Amino acid sequence: MRKRKYKKLKLQKSYTLRPTNPGAERWLGVVIPVLNHGYVYLLDYLGGDGDIEQAARVSYGEGTRKVSQTGGLIRYLASHSHTSPFEMVEFKFHAKMPIFVARQWVRHRTASLNEYSARYSVLKNEFYVPKSSAISVQSLDNKQGRGNSVNSTIAKKIKDRLSKHYKASNGFYQWLLDENDGPGLARELARITLPLAVYTQWYWKIDLHNLLHFLKLRMDKHAQLEIREYANAIATIVKDAVPFTWEAFNDYKLEALSLNRLEKDVLKKTFSGKEVALDENEINAVAAQVGLNNKRELMEFKDKLRDMGLIKT
Amino acid sequence: MRKRKYKKLKLQKSYTLRPTNPGAERWLGVVIPVLNHGYVYLLDYLGGDGDIEQAARVSYGEGTRKVSQTGGLIRYLASHSHTSPFEMVEFKFHAKMPIFVARQWVRHRTASLNEYSARYSVLKNEFYVPKSSAISVQSLDNKQGRGNSVNSTIAKKIKDRLSKHYKASNGFYQWLLDENDGPGLARELARITLPLAVYTQWYWKIDLHNLLHFLKLRMDKHAQLEIREYANAIATIVKDAVPFTWEAFNDYKLEALSLNRLEKDVLKKTFSGKEVALDENEINAVAAQVGLNNKRELMEFKDKLRDMGLIKT
Amino acid sequence: MRKRKYKKLKLQKSYTLRPTNPGAERWLGVVIPVLNHGYVYLLDYLGGDGDIEQAARVSYGEGTRKVSQTGGLIRYLASHSHTSPFEMVEFKFHAKMPIFVARQWVRHRTASLNEYSARYSVLKNEFYVPKSSAISVQSLDNKQGRGNSVNSTIAKKIKDRLSKHYKASNGFYQWLLDENDGPGLARELARITLPLAVYTQWYWKIDLHNLLHFLKLRMDKHAQLEIREYANAIATIVKDAVPFTWEAFNDYKLEALSLNRLEKDVLKKTFSGKEVALDENEINAVAAQVGLNNKRELMEFKDKLRDMGLIKT
Amino acid sequence: MRKRKYKKLKLQKSYTLRPTNPGAERWLGVVIPVLNHGYVYLLDYLGGDGDIEQAARVSYGEGTRKVSQTGGLIRYLASHSHTSPFEMVEFKFHAKMPIFVARQWVRHRTASLNEYSARYSVLKNEFYVPKSSAISVQSLDNKQGRGNSVNSTIAKKIKDRLSKHYKASNGFYQWLLDENDGPGLARELARITLPLAVYTQWYWKIDLHNLLHFLKLRMDKHAQLEIREYANAIATIVKDAVPFTWEAFNDYKLEALSLNRLEKDVLKKTFSGKEVALDENEINAVAAQVGLNNKRELMEFKDKLRDMGLIKT
Repeated sequence: MRKRKYKKLKLQKSYTLRPTNPGAERWLGVVIPVLNHGYVYLLDYLGGDGDIEQAARVSYGEGTRKVSQTGGLIRYLASHSHTSPFEMVEFKFHAKMPIFVARQWVRHRTASLNEYSARYSVLKNEFYVPKSSAISVQSLDNKQGRGNSVNSTIAKKIKDRLSKHYKASNGFYQWLLDENDGPGLARELARITLPLAVYTQWYWKIDLHNLLHFLKLRMDKHAQLEIREYANAIATIVKDAVPFTWEAFNDYKLEALSLNRLEKDVLKKTFSGKEVALDENEINAVAAQVGLNNKRELMEFKDKLRDMGLIKT
Repeated sequence: MRKRKYKKLKLQKSYTLRPTNPGAERWLGVVIPVLNHGYVYLLDYLGGDGDIEQAARVSYGEGTRKVSQTGGLIRYLASHSHTSPFEMVEFKFHAKMPIFVARQWVRHRTASLNEYSARYSVLKNEFYVPKSSAISVQSLDNKQGRGNSVNSTIAKKIKDRLSKHYKASNGFYQWLLDENDGPGLARELARITLPLAVYTQWYWKIDLHNLLHFLKLRMDKHAQLEIREYANAIATIVKDAVPFTWEAFNDYKLEALSLNRLEKDVLKKTFSGKEVALDENEINAVAAQVGLNNKRELMEFKDKLRDMGLIKT
Repeated sequence: MRKRKYKKLKLQKSYTLRPTNPGAERWLGVVIPVLNHGYVYLLDYLGGDGDIEQAARVSYGEGTRKVSQTGGLIRYLASHSHTSPFEMVEFKFHAKMPIFVARQWVRHRTASLNEYSARYSVLKNEFYVPKSSAISVQSLDNKQGRGNSVNSTIAKKIKDRLSKHYKASNGFYQWLLDENDGPGLARELARITLPLAVYTQWYWKIDLHNLLHFLKLRMDKHAQLEIREYANAIATIVKDAVPFTWEAFNDYKLEALSLNRLEKDVLKKTFSGKEVALDENEINAVAAQVGLNNKRELMEFKDKLRDMGLIKT
Repeated sequence: MRKRKYKKLKLQKSYTLRPTNPGAERWLGVVIPVLNHGYVYLLDYLGGDGDIEQAARVSYGEGTRKVSQTGGLIRYLASHSHTSPFEMVEFKFHAKMPIFVARQWVRHRTASLNEYSARYSVLKNEFYVPKSSAISVQSLDNKQGRGNSVNSTIAKKIKDRLSKHYKASNGFYQWLLDENDGPGLARELARITLPLAVYTQWYWKIDLHNLLHFLKLRMDKHAQLEIREYANAIATIVKDAVPFTWEAFNDYKLEALSLNRLEKDVLKKTFSGKEVALDENEINAVAAQVGLNNKRELMEFKDKLRDMGLIKT
């Protein structure tokens, strides 16, 4: 639905004998705009949920395969850290982002990358200007985060000064490059004057296991707002491309809650002096309501309740 | 203490200007026996807890460093998935193991490895024979695990047949190699007749982040018993070499308990109909008893209780 | 042509908006037999020569692209160690091989892998028996290689003894697994008795850069014969799938000749005392005959001749 | 000798049971200045030439080891692409460099990295200003390189304008951060206005195999001048730390000359019509003069001469 708004690249339809993935096909060439000049779109893919299942099932020899069980198997893989089947799916994106975002992005090393070269080509006059709502003061309690947005008067002032700074920087860059009115400096040297807000672009290919790790870290509220917007855009695509995997990733990673050893100890000690132990039948009933129907998952849940001292034994 | 029993390799003492790590130094050349013919020992190391802290603190510029805070910082890194500082520590081991163990081990790809070559050298007449307690029937509920141990009569019978099989296999191998009484086959060919229980050995170098991942998976009860024994032996060393990291790893990974989205929903729904909400003061008191004193950690814990619907708001 | 003989898996034809690669499409599901029970076939792919070029050209901004220049650009990338564009192509194979081959194969760590699990499933009664021509004595001058083949009488004797050994090994394995007539041992334990010649299988996904590195090492005459046969089978596919890349790989890696510093010194010193310096026009003429027409390549070649002291200056 | 000029960090001397490496010890904490504000120094290391040999010799079982043969073995490994033993040595550096250099550096993914965080801390007022000799116009024949240096008048003018631009950029950055006279913007946002010439710093740990690859690419004349200076500084250290490896790397990589298939064909064709074939005795004599004494290396060289059609057969 929202996709209607997106620019779609003209792509050629062909026959293939490869496995195809309808959810991924729909996003090929659909350019999602991000920030003021950036974007990301899916350029190519290999595989999907079914191929993750197939990779996991190679263990089972010739065993028959019920398509209906794909989701359950994928949840099992996600919950038991069997990550290698997720490496069997690959996504390739074309993205354009400010350099300070690119620098965070590239810390994810297990990916293939080809970037626009400012040694070879001239960078365009495109710089990141945040929306007013994204212009925030330094957070007081988080040394590497943002606090409140500034008011609209200050936001306007900052944007004006940013524009002026970018214009001056680009003017200087153009003068340095100019062979007639300037010194005609080497491009690899002239670019060092440009601010980190300048846009670059790249092709980026990564397998699904590593992509989910990227998304976990970069959709997180501790990630810088700007890279979060790219992560969210990519997540929109991945969600459609591998729906079973996305559900499992959401349940077991994004929305999971982890208790460390001390926290478990506090709970146990607190509950041991109380009469709050839950009844197994009650748990079963609520679980059914909530959609926790899988037998194995329910059993594992009750083991955790026991581990926290929360269930009658 | 237990170390007294271990064979110690004779090592030369030297001066160095490198950071040294007393906990790691103690384990250099201390050969821990594993299974019937195997072993593992620490051959070399780089860094320790302090170097993880130093790597994390490069962010903070010139800031002063209080050694007493190393543990707290490392717990923070471990709990917030800041894994890159743990890559700054490196361990190098010499280990000897049956080939079926080596095949599982080598699936951990982010490590450096040099293995004994059976193309170049002749393999010794050493094969894995399990202890009686490790000879178990197929598990009924876990298609890739062990059930109960067989009784001692059957165990004895199996061991006898194993020995006979190994003897026959080695005899055939030796005949194939023999240039006088046999065909003098190429070593790379003759070895294909040896069973997966034959021992090999290697040097293995890995950074601490990836080593902890190895230990998490291979100390797990789902890992095959035999590789678990190697993981446990390595854990003994790591525990001494990076004590703060080990404590954090234990609390946040080994003994952590993770609740997925559905499980949280069940808890919330169950508790919302009950009067079990815990009192914040009570939590504070129990936390202090249990040793959960760190202010940030306590705050994060109470956020989790709120997320589970377990605390009065 | 030879493909006619190969078994072809039945694959479903679909539409796709992805880039397709006719040379790769032709090999999808075409099962190439290797050794006595093994095989390899292409299961899926992403990209082709054109995508390597596209990745390289991201540097050039909006520049027009002439398809006719793909080959030249790819040769340039290959000759100047610009390897990252080759990572933009991915191949996924299904292969079956003896475990001693699998152990060499898996040393190539930058790949994704899902293997048949003998903890979970029972291994088939399939073992590697070399053809007579591959049964060779230990090489005298190469400590990790093969010398001459044994004569046919000895080959026959060896094959007979191999079969007997495999039969006995499999019999023992089946007895260990047997829940009625044997102890019903856990599969993960019973399998340790099987020889390294037993067959396993896996899915293997790797990018083209790393695949070419695999092929360079495993097609080499120093690689063990058996893995060489898998490498050669894969090469047959890659050759068709990325013809320009293959040509460049062949010219710059497989059939290249490298002279080290000392060797260059010997040549220079030898030639400096002689009247053998070549004439540039003559070189140009011969180069044209041989097909070395690219202006840049010809210029670089003459620089090398100068470096060896072989051309008139 | 040159080291005298370098600032030396005060390091503590300790005992260790680890292998030590005198050539590396000498460089610990010796800060090599690079560019106008940058530096690099060795912070820690693991292993040396002897450990590469040891890793290679694990293949040979218990075989005796002659220290005198270390160099020969390492040359053999280098010339036959046996790269894994070189992974057994590790170096850890502290380096400070402009961000445009950091962006090229980080493309080498197989390394561990912790960088100064400008989300957390304020960047210093330090920017790269090239020396006059490094201020060059765009190359005409190499689209990503530098041509001649500009004249001293223009160089001066450019430096002045650079200083002015950096001052303005830093002034804007400081104003954005200022909580009193400016908006007190979040540091992660304020920094996007700084030019790519601003300095950052990091810890960088990498194994020797990957470090040599880094050096091969970044010492190359096609690498940008500024990163080349860091590569050269690191090379100075590596040369002392692993002298045998360096010699082999120099002979087989840095100063090697590679002929592709077409080039070999041209040579063969050219020589086949001439009477220039060299005499084997002559080659032997010159080789001895030049220092190519190793029997295996000499044999391999003569094979290459035959391959080029340059030796009498």
